[in-house]
This record gives sequence, C-alpha cells and structure tokens, in this order.
Amino acid sequence: MTTQATTGQVLVTAQDLRAALSAILVGHQVPSDQAEVIAELLAEADLRGVDSHGAHLMSMYASRLADGHLTPRTTVTTLADNGSAVVLDGGLGFGQIAGLEAAKLVSARAAEHGVAAVAVRETTHLGALGAYTARVAAEGRICLCVQNGPTFVPPFGGITPLMSTNPLSYAIPAGEEPTIVYDIATTAVAGNKLLLAKKRGDPTIPPGWANDTSGRPTTDTQAASVRHLQWFGGHKGFGLALLVELLAGVLAGSSFGTTERTASPLHGDARIAKGVVFIAIDPERFAQREVFTAAVDTLIREIRGSEPAVGVDRIWLPGEPEHERQKARSRDGIPLSPVLVDELRRLAAAVGAPPLRVRAGDDTAPGGA
Amino acid sequence: MTTQATTGQVLVTAQDLRAALSAILVGHQVPSDQAEVIAELLAEADLRGVDSHGAHLMSMYASRLADGHLTPRTTVTTLADNGSAVVLDGGLGFGQIAGLEAAKLVSARAAEHGVAAVAVRETTHLGALGAYTARVAAEGRICLCVQNGPTFVPPFGGITPLMSTNPLSYAIPAGEEPTIVYDIATTAVAGNKLLLAKKRGDPTIPPGWANDTSGRPTTDTQAASVRHLQWFGGHKGFGLALLVELLAGVLAGSSFGTTERTASPLHGDARIAKGVVFIAIDPERFAQREVFTAAVDTLIREIRGSEPAVGVDRIWLPGEPEHERQKARSRDGIPLSPVLVDELRRLAAAVGAPPLRVRAGDDTAPGGA
Repeated sequence: MTTQATTGQVLVTAQDLRAALSAILVGHQVPSDQAEVIAELLAEADLRGVDSHGAHLMSMYASRLADGHLTPRTTVTTLADNGSAVVLDGGLGFGQIAGLEAAKLVSARAAEHGVAAVAVRETTHLGALGAYTARVAAEGRICLCVQNGPTFVPPFGGITPLMSTNPLSYAIPAGEEPTIVYDIATTAVAGNKLLLAKKRGDPTIPPGWANDTSGRPTTDTQAASVRHLQWFGGHKGFGLALLVELLAGVLAGSSFGTTERTASPLHGDARIAKGVVFIAIDPERFAQREVFTAAVDTLIREIRGSEPAVGVDRIWLPGEPEHERQKARSRDGIPLSPVLVDELRRLAAAVGAPPLRVRAGDDTAPGGA
Repeated sequence: MTTQATTGQVLVTAQDLRAALSAILVGHQVPSDQAEVIAELLAEADLRGVDSHGAHLMSMYASRLADGHLTPRTTVTTLADNGSAVVLDGGLGFGQIAGLEAAKLVSARAAEHGVAAVAVRETTHLGALGAYTARVAAEGRICLCVQNGPTFVPPFGGITPLMSTNPLSYAIPAGEEPTIVYDIATTAVAGNKLLLAKKRGDPTIPPGWANDTSGRPTTDTQAASVRHLQWFGGHKGFGLALLVELLAGVLAGSSFGTTERTASPLHGDARIAKGVVFIAIDPERFAQREVFTAAVDTLIREIRGSEPAVGVDRIWLPGEPEHERQKARSRDGIPLSPVLVDELRRLAAAVGAPPLRVRAGDDTAPGGA
C-alpha cells in the first residue's frame, strides 16, 4: 500500500501533525503532557487512515474547550476499586486521558487477577476505541471495549432516539502477525457517511443505512434521516448496541437512554458525557503465552490464505487495512485535505500557536499560510 | 400470546416431553440424573419457541450415542483453575452437562472475584446458549457466552470453510422486568433456514443469507450454497465470528479453523467437538444491586415504550418473544409437528422406552401410537 496525495491534498508528517495539534491544545490551557498524549492519539488515527477520528476532531474539541464544556486539565478519580473491578470518573475531561488510564489499569489488573473490568463514567469523546484495545493487546492481554453517548439512534423497530452509534472494539495479541483490532459502530454506518452522501447529492444509499422520519426503510438519500440510522444486521446489531448501553451506560453509572447521570448541562442528543467499559483477559491463565499467540497466528494465516470469492482481491483481518496504511503513511506522509489544513491553521492562529508545517512542494492548500 | 396448534400439530406438556426425552437418553445409557438435565434444557427450548434447539435434536444425539461418538456419561474435568480463570474439559460428553457446570462455576467465581471467565474444551452440542447465560443472570450476574464448532462457513470475502455459525449470547439481570437474553448466530441465518427454503422451492432468498459456490452474492435459492452462508452485517458480523473463534477455539484450547485439537475422530465439517467460553461480571462490584437492576428496568421500559416505526406493532427486547412464548406454552402446551412426534416415538421404541404422551384429542399425528 502506498500513500498518494490526490489532487490538492497536502502531505504532512505524523511528527508535524502531532506538534501542531498539541500546540492548539496547549493554547486552550491543556497541560502540555496531556496535550501530547491527545495529539499522539489523533495523529495515530490519521496515520491509520481512520480520518474521521483524527485531526478532523480538533475543531470540535477547541469549540468545547472555548465553551467551557470540556475540562482542559483531565483529572481521573477512582470511585470504586475492587481489584478486578474498578470504576473511574473522567471529570468531563479528555476521553483520551481517561481512556488510556483505564486501558493501562485493566491490563495491569488482568495480569494480576486473570480477568478484569474497568468502567469510566463522566468521560468525553475518546476517538477510535481500537487505539485503546490495541495497547492492551500489545501488553499481551485480550481486550474488549464498549462506549455509549448522546441519544440520536432509535431502537430497532422504533423512532424515538435513545442510543448513540454505540461502538464496540476488541483486540487480540498475535505472535508474528499484527494484532487483530476490531473497531466498529453498531449502527450500519456513522451519521457522517449519510450526511456526506446528502452533500454530494447521491440519489440513493444502500439499504439498511437509515430509515425515513417515520421509520420506514429507504434507499432515497434525501428521505433518509440521520436521526434514524439503522443497526448493522437489524435486530442482531441492535442487541449488541443494547449490550453496549447496558455496560457503558447502566453498569458504569453513566447516562443511558434518556436518563442523565452527568454534571454536564449538555443532555440528550447534545450530551458530551460518555461511559466506557473495558474488559481484559490474560491468556496466560488459559494456555502458555507462546501456544496462544502461535495459534492466533495460525488462524490469521488461514483466514488470509482462504481462497477468495470471485471478484475479491484479498481477504482482510480486522485492523489489517489500518496496519498497512500506518506503515505506508509513516513512510510517505499523511494526506490531509486543504480544507482540514486550513481549519487547523485557523485553530492555531486563534490561540497564537505555530501553524501546521506541511512538506515543501506539497502545500497546495488554498488556505496555506 | 396464545399457543394454537396449527392443523395437524400435536400439543404436549413440558413435563411429558421431558419424561419422553429423558427416557430415550436413559435407553442409551445416559445416567438418569444427567438425562433429566438434558431433557429439561431441550424441553425448555421448545417451551420458549426455539424449536431448532429443542426435542428436534434428539435424533442427532441418539445417532451420535449409537455410533459411539458422544459419551453417554458426561465427565467434566478441571484442566486449570486460577480462581477467576478456569479451563474445563467436557470429555466429548453432553454439552448441556458441561455447559451448566461451566455456567454455575463462572457465576460463583464472578461473585467471588468480581469478573471471571470459564472455558470448556472437548464438549459437544449445547443447544441454545441463552439457556446458560439466562441462568447466570438469574443469579444476578452479567454473562456472555461464545461457542465455535465444525468448519463450514468461509471468512468474509473467501470461499474456504473455516468456521461455524459461531453463536454469541449475553444475558443481563433486570429488576421487575424479564431478564434480557440475547442469543444469535453470527451468520445471517442458520443453514437449516436455507435448506428449508430449498425444500419448499422458494424462488428467492433475502440478500445476504448465502453466496453461490464461487462466493458471489445471490438471492437465487437454488444457487445459494449452505457451505457459503454469510455473516450478519458483512465484515462486522465476520469480526464477531472471529472473536468467537479466538475465544472458544484458540483461548479454550479447542479446535479452531482447520486445526484439530480433539480426541474425536470427527474433523472439519463433521467435527462434533465444540469450544465454549463464559465471561461473567458481578454488577455489585460497580453499583448497588438495586440501583443496577432498577436502571436496567428503566432502559427496558424506555425501549419498549419507544414510538414504533410505521408498520411495526411492538418493539421487542432480546429474549422477550421467547419469554412470552414460554408463558403461553407453559399454559397451553407445546405444539409439535406430527413428524417430530413420530420421530420421538421411533427413537423411544428403538431403546424400549415409553412413548411420548400427547394430550387426549390432540393426537392427530399420522404416526400416533
């Protein structure tokens, strides 16, 4: 896989992107050590090609910081510690800080107890959950993570918005193969994908993306409502979203459905408070580490080596496309749209931070400084 | 919900069905205490309307017992016990016996440690996984269960059969509301559903059920192959099936993909050995029990009370249709097809066991004794 900047795109290095993002955060009174961590996770998402969870998010964070809804200095407190079960409070600070602390904790507690769960309430946007589960897997543990949020998706068969896109991620350590990292929304697609289709004027969307405002299935892009996203696989995906809501919302002591359990004044579909639950298992309690990771490698290779269906080029494991893109973009640079580069420069200018450096010759952004 | 025997159907009581099933098992040298447990779980599936996992399975069990592939007396041994993490061996006996033992154990260990996982290798067919997770939830614990099996489903995008329908179940204790019980195959449908459509001569099947033998998507019933079942929701369902294979196969030390780790001579798509993993969480480590179960009730009622979409009669929680059917069939009797009644009588006669009793006046089965 190679990275090619399509016409008008700008190539940046991960290092430069991290520096620019960190400077904007510091300009909003985020402590520099925390700013670096947040910037690292955002740049990592762009490196892995998960652009929806990368630098693109900075404008949302900046506006929440400016409005006083997001606490610049994240303080994570422990509400309950029962060894293998811990409840943390993220104090409405950055989800990246609370998420990484929870991931480190669940990994350590799984090492100690064999199986562990860590819940976080009162945290906010975490970006891609796979970033956290992958880090736990890198320490040799199996990790699951679920997260709930604002209410804009109705239950299967209904039209009252009660849940979020309720993502679910898991990661499994392999031996020589890359870590398996699964990271999905339990809705068929994210709301942004439908909004983009509307903006582009696409006449139709695939069946199952979203219903109309009466809850009727539709493939008409304009009739489809972003407040009527559908669950992937119908009732089966809905049942998973419900599990996410029950763990990340109910069990973690966070808001769930229309029940608000947050100090934030932002409620319902404007809610920024999120609940998260991590579960980790130490495979060494079940088998020797080498036996386990070798078997994971065997299964990965068998799946990758499966005969492809007619018209299929390659069979991918979860997380493998992102892993390949990370290698390519680390080498070639991260392609950003001129609009995004412009946005990041405006965000930097607003707080007197230095602008994003782009590679010489690649800076074709209309808003280039 | 009321139970009505459609033309030709036979009504039986759960008690009579249990007695008949147990007698057949005892006739095959299954110890009577174990036979009663197995019969109870099978009759429970029929009571709940999960007919595919009920008395209908007895003919498969009887044939496996007769062929010496299924051990009549199930002996469950402990291979590793690390407190919150336990590995059991089901000795190629009945999955119901090993499954219930594992469920009891994971519940007790979650009570003791907060979070626990129990793996079972070398077990066989367990019936509906929801029966086990529901029992753990009845003791107040959150429970997840996954199971793998014979290789007849290819990975997403491939045509080499490597996995089973890899089911996943969870159950969550509620307060006054019925337990939430989710129990799905990670394939879009079970193979039986496609075979039935072929038998009926249905011209088409819904998109996404199965591909043709080249792995091309199809809605042509005759072209669709039962060895090319598709995962629910495409790559998202495939990723869940992979998690199931990694836990129930790799982690539990069971067979996975084409790697056989079983004493049974039945391999690949004929494999009867199954791996299972239970994970349980005690919600009391996170919140007071009453606070947790009251919040679960609130979410259940909110979902059920959501405004239904046009054309939708009622919004169901996972496990709710089965719960309603169980109430109705406990009162009115279980409707069985004459073919099944006939089959059960032949199975009983073959081992000199008393035949299934049916209600007076309802016995319209062509094979009625």
